[in-house]
Amino acid sequence: VDWQAGPATLHMFKRVTIIGLGLIGGSLGLAIRERRLAEEIIGVSRRQSTIRKAMSLGVVDRVTLDIKEGVCGSDFVILTAPVLTIIEIAKRIKGVLKKGVIVTDAGSTKYDVVKNIEAIFPNGASFVGSHPLAGSEKSGLNFVNKDLFKDAYCLLTKTPNTDSKAFKKIKIFWRRIGMRVVSMNAKQHDKIISKISHLPHAVSASLSNTCRGIDLSLAAGGFKDTTRISSGSPELWKDIFLTNRKNLARDINMLKKELSKLETALIRGDEKKILYFLKKAKGVRDSV
Amino acid sequence: VDWQAGPATLHMFKRVTIIGLGLIGGSLGLAIRERRLAEEIIGVSRRQSTIRKAMSLGVVDRVTLDIKEGVCGSDFVILTAPVLTIIEIAKRIKGVLKKGVIVTDAGSTKYDVVKNIEAIFPNGASFVGSHPLAGSEKSGLNFVNKDLFKDAYCLLTKTPNTDSKAFKKIKIFWRRIGMRVVSMNAKQHDKIISKISHLPHAVSASLSNTCRGIDLSLAAGGFKDTTRISSGSPELWKDIFLTNRKNLARDINMLKKELSKLETALIRGDEKKILYFLKKAKGVRDSV
Repeated sequence: VDWQAGPATLHMFKRVTIIGLGLIGGSLGLAIRERRLAEEIIGVSRRQSTIRKAMSLGVVDRVTLDIKEGVCGSDFVILTAPVLTIIEIAKRIKGVLKKGVIVTDAGSTKYDVVKNIEAIFPNGASFVGSHPLAGSEKSGLNFVNKDLFKDAYCLLTKTPNTDSKAFKKIKIFWRRIGMRVVSMNAKQHDKIISKISHLPHAVSASLSNTCRGIDLSLAAGGFKDTTRISSGSPELWKDIFLTNRKNLARDINMLKKELSKLETALIRGDEKKILYFLKKAKGVRDSV
Repeated sequence: VDWQAGPATLHMFKRVTIIGLGLIGGSLGLAIRERRLAEEIIGVSRRQSTIRKAMSLGVVDRVTLDIKEGVCGSDFVILTAPVLTIIEIAKRIKGVLKKGVIVTDAGSTKYDVVKNIEAIFPNGASFVGSHPLAGSEKSGLNFVNKDLFKDAYCLLTKTPNTDSKAFKKIKIFWRRIGMRVVSMNAKQHDKIISKISHLPHAVSASLSNTCRGIDLSLAAGGFKDTTRISSGSPELWKDIFLTNRKNLARDINMLKKELSKLETALIRGDEKKILYFLKKAKGVRDSV
């Protein structure tokens, strides 16, 4: 079946369960409904207040606090939560998964997630790791947006155990959500994402911490932009950092070396080196 | 005379000369004209192409390549250029300044500027150092905006040599441009601005340099925001870094220590320390 070309009434999935109703989970619910990718969308949250808000915002069709009830009978399950929680959720639901189910996630690191989930999932349940690059420093249902994923990249991971039919279907799913899909292995993913996402977060947080206790009332656009992402959820980022700690520690070390080069040039008043440093940086940034 | 309360026809200045027609100089021309703060606005640039563009955009009334001619007869002169060039310009114009003239600048560091210019200016010419916090990573006349300064801070520096009437007039000038004026001494200025403006630029440039040579096609919002300012003019920032090198070197060292704390926590897999680091950063950023 070609879901991409099929009529709008031919749903890709009968029942989708989204576990975790935050910015990503809620926005996914809206996007799935708008594009009619599933007949029914179930939302699962741990909090009664989130359940109420999800219903009032209409991000899913039905909601439940009971994770096993929420997953039971679904043919597609999406795990959205901090990375270590994603792994915990997978352990809790593995016994109630329907035969033929496809499970994916939206975690920002992939090696630990994929390795752990593949090791525990029963036969008949296919897991494909996903990383939609569509977060924000804002979290929670208050910021849901059906177009959050539009034109952004979604990184899919493939392992020797990945079911190729499930992989293809997940790829089409994210494309229909509006994303550009790129596939790679989980180790590659974590290495690349460490530099272009986790290192910027580490830098942003370090800059905020360096400026702790000083008067920030005069802070202008430069400070605000550079520190913006350090306002993101500490719980979410703690898991990301922990599950990508080797790559990130190595990248932080590289960044410290760059800072040291500049520091030395400043101490020496080395005009040429300072200019070279700034020109090189501009070249990199302008190439994005 | 109270220029703030005065009728629109009562100009603050007869003739204003803006030296340097880039983003700041050009936008100032537009803002001065819109608010009718001067009878005549003269623009000075080193480049014929800029002169032509300034006239076609109408950012000033008259333009000249001859800096001495441009300054002659003006009662208000604004120096907009990289910091070290500001000092050079001051040396070149000191001989043709009209008695009673007020001169200010828009440089991002103040100690070297104020010290050097005060030392060379003749009696009858008052210099007051200004730093409008209204730049951008974009430069040049293509980005001029008459509202660039609106609601942003302008830092004025006061020294024992500052003429109090000139200081008051400059303060009113920036206020009428729409800025919030804060005054401080030049050393204080450079120390504060090192942390909230120059350090973010150093960090942003270092991050760009660390990611040099890797595929940045997947770079999302976090990377783009954190590196945005590193796209700024290297020539402009080289002078800023050089004239604030002691403060900036010290702040870079502090930042490296923050990064080292995180690096150590990552290597040890210390969940508590990582979470504490991220929470602290979020607290700082959310307070802005």
